[in-house]
Amino acid sequence: MDVFEAAKSVVSPSNKMLEEARSRQLRLTKPPYSLGRLEEIANRLSAICGVVPPSIPSRPALAVFAGDHGVLASGVSPWPAEVTTQMIYNFLAGGAAVNVLARRFGIDVKVVDMGVASDLDPAPGLIDKKVAKGTNNLATGPAMTPGQARGAVAAGFDVANELVDSGYDILLIGDMGIGNTTPSAALVSYFCDLDASVVTGRGTGIDDDLHAIKVAIVASSVERARASATEPIEVLAEIGGFEHGGIAGFIIGAAFRRVPVVLDGVIANASALLAQAICPASIGYAFAGHISREPGAIRALSKLGLDPVVDLNLALGEGTGAALSFGTIAAAAALLGEMATFDEAGVTEK
Amino acid sequence: MDVFEAAKSVVSPSNKMLEEARSRQLRLTKPPYSLGRLEEIANRLSAICGVVPPSIPSRPALAVFAGDHGVLASGVSPWPAEVTTQMIYNFLAGGAAVNVLARRFGIDVKVVDMGVASDLDPAPGLIDKKVAKGTNNLATGPAMTPGQARGAVAAGFDVANELVDSGYDILLIGDMGIGNTTPSAALVSYFCDLDASVVTGRGTGIDDDLHAIKVAIVASSVERARASATEPIEVLAEIGGFEHGGIAGFIIGAAFRRVPVVLDGVIANASALLAQAICPASIGYAFAGHISREPGAIRALSKLGLDPVVDLNLALGEGTGAALSFGTIAAAAALLGEMATFDEAGVTEK
Repeated sequence: MDVFEAAKSVVSPSNKMLEEARSRQLRLTKPPYSLGRLEEIANRLSAICGVVPPSIPSRPALAVFAGDHGVLASGVSPWPAEVTTQMIYNFLAGGAAVNVLARRFGIDVKVVDMGVASDLDPAPGLIDKKVAKGTNNLATGPAMTPGQARGAVAAGFDVANELVDSGYDILLIGDMGIGNTTPSAALVSYFCDLDASVVTGRGTGIDDDLHAIKVAIVASSVERARASATEPIEVLAEIGGFEHGGIAGFIIGAAFRRVPVVLDGVIANASALLAQAICPASIGYAFAGHISREPGAIRALSKLGLDPVVDLNLALGEGTGAALSFGTIAAAAALLGEMATFDEAGVTEK
Repeated sequence: MDVFEAAKSVVSPSNKMLEEARSRQLRLTKPPYSLGRLEEIANRLSAICGVVPPSIPSRPALAVFAGDHGVLASGVSPWPAEVTTQMIYNFLAGGAAVNVLARRFGIDVKVVDMGVASDLDPAPGLIDKKVAKGTNNLATGPAMTPGQARGAVAAGFDVANELVDSGYDILLIGDMGIGNTTPSAALVSYFCDLDASVVTGRGTGIDDDLHAIKVAIVASSVERARASATEPIEVLAEIGGFEHGGIAGFIIGAAFRRVPVVLDGVIANASALLAQAICPASIGYAFAGHISREPGAIRALSKLGLDPVVDLNLALGEGTGAALSFGTIAAAAALLGEMATFDEAGVTEK
């Protein structure tokens, strides 16, 4: 199915099941609301899967959306572009941070080539959805054509459907792409209507001079997008990255299949704003895995209306925050299903 | 060994290993410091176990310290005292929140009867360290005798040693005791030198009238302790609970054995202040599993110098916050040990 057609058919999670879950929470052997945000997570899972208690997510897949960025030519990062490719081979060899976390939490890692500049050797776990060999420099013109933008979103939608077809019941988002905090800041600036200086951070660690260059590029590219774009897909084409398009499509795909989807840091947050613009109901299926220390992250989550599960001052990407949150999300579901009620346990209510 | 003798022999974790761990973090395939608080956790674990990378904690035990409280007679909680005993049977039957979390994360749960008012039937997983059948009412006089206070701390120390002897390599703290947020608030007020109104919360959910009673009781009992107590153990005797003494001894026992120990909410935080007063170096072995929404918790953690792992607005106790944090603490250790270095992965540094 076409992602843009599918987007029109996505409906919000069930309010009836949300209420039923809230009511069950009050019968469990604990003071009312004492499990805090775990209760909200479990209630939302009930609404998503349409049953109380919710099924416990047990087959997680984490897709690392990778791409390269023409804006690197304007000097927004101290890391060379080849690190994107080198890190992909590190993911495929199991040596990156996200791999360590995935092994501990029983998560399968897939790498989605959305638009890496090099030719990648085929490998197990590598999904080829390459739109082009890196974006154009968004500092000097559109990052991609509208056709490429639509293709990126469609590719992410397809990946979500393929993973759900393979039996995965919760989808986690990761990213890799040297330079990708710059288009992320631009997307957050555009969709949250905030100044570039407010949402542009230091990515993997840049000094004041680089930061000033980055802020200026974000500001001018967003100004250009405001003048020219009328549709969300045109915003992506002007100032986004291929992985942003892929992630947005992935979120819409998860929502279309009524499967929970877990965001990671600012790249996923920015992409979720694009998904929200295309398909507002899709965000009902999304959880904020963590809050990145990148300044755009908290602004994006505020606009999305999502509270993060993990807050550990991370700024790595790869899906590390999403992976860390998985155990907590699954545990929240287990609590609603497995705790004894006051009646069952013979515990006196207050 | 006597806990008070042992306390004198506890030494702080190794600064040399802390520095060595920090240095290894910089060689891993990630931007410097991008794993945020996970790096601090792993570095502290290295310092505790004296090796880089640290051994990954894999045999966790969670001890729920239970006691009853004479102050309930002054009306500080809407829950009847028998709920302490009923919840212990719920723990032993596996129906409480902490049991659900422990099953998911592979944690063994033990219940330590420090001073429950009823006679408990022996059961697997129940450890009998009963000091007395509940404390006296701290609103009208000392909660316990100095001898009982020493006995409670000694009992907790013994439990830690017994668990480490059984092969557990990380100790988690839980609590159960209707009324126990009142002595917790009193201990935080005393040790942090803060006004009762600042540190006294609503426990399992009380209205303004009950809260005012609770604040007044905390204020007057702390005033009495300030006038009479000269040693930490006398503070416990005046205004504490048996589980607070047990938890303090447990923390000192973990430190004595050089094993990490994970705090839960405000009851464990308040008890850690007592452990700190008796044995300052013991806090070097402690992790703050989570930050409770009880107002005393953040004040106590500030005085302890600990940052919480989990922040999900919980206020349940039982060890739920400690249990939730375990996966993250173990994952932090795994990251430092299992991630590839730049050299190993052939990734270019910036």
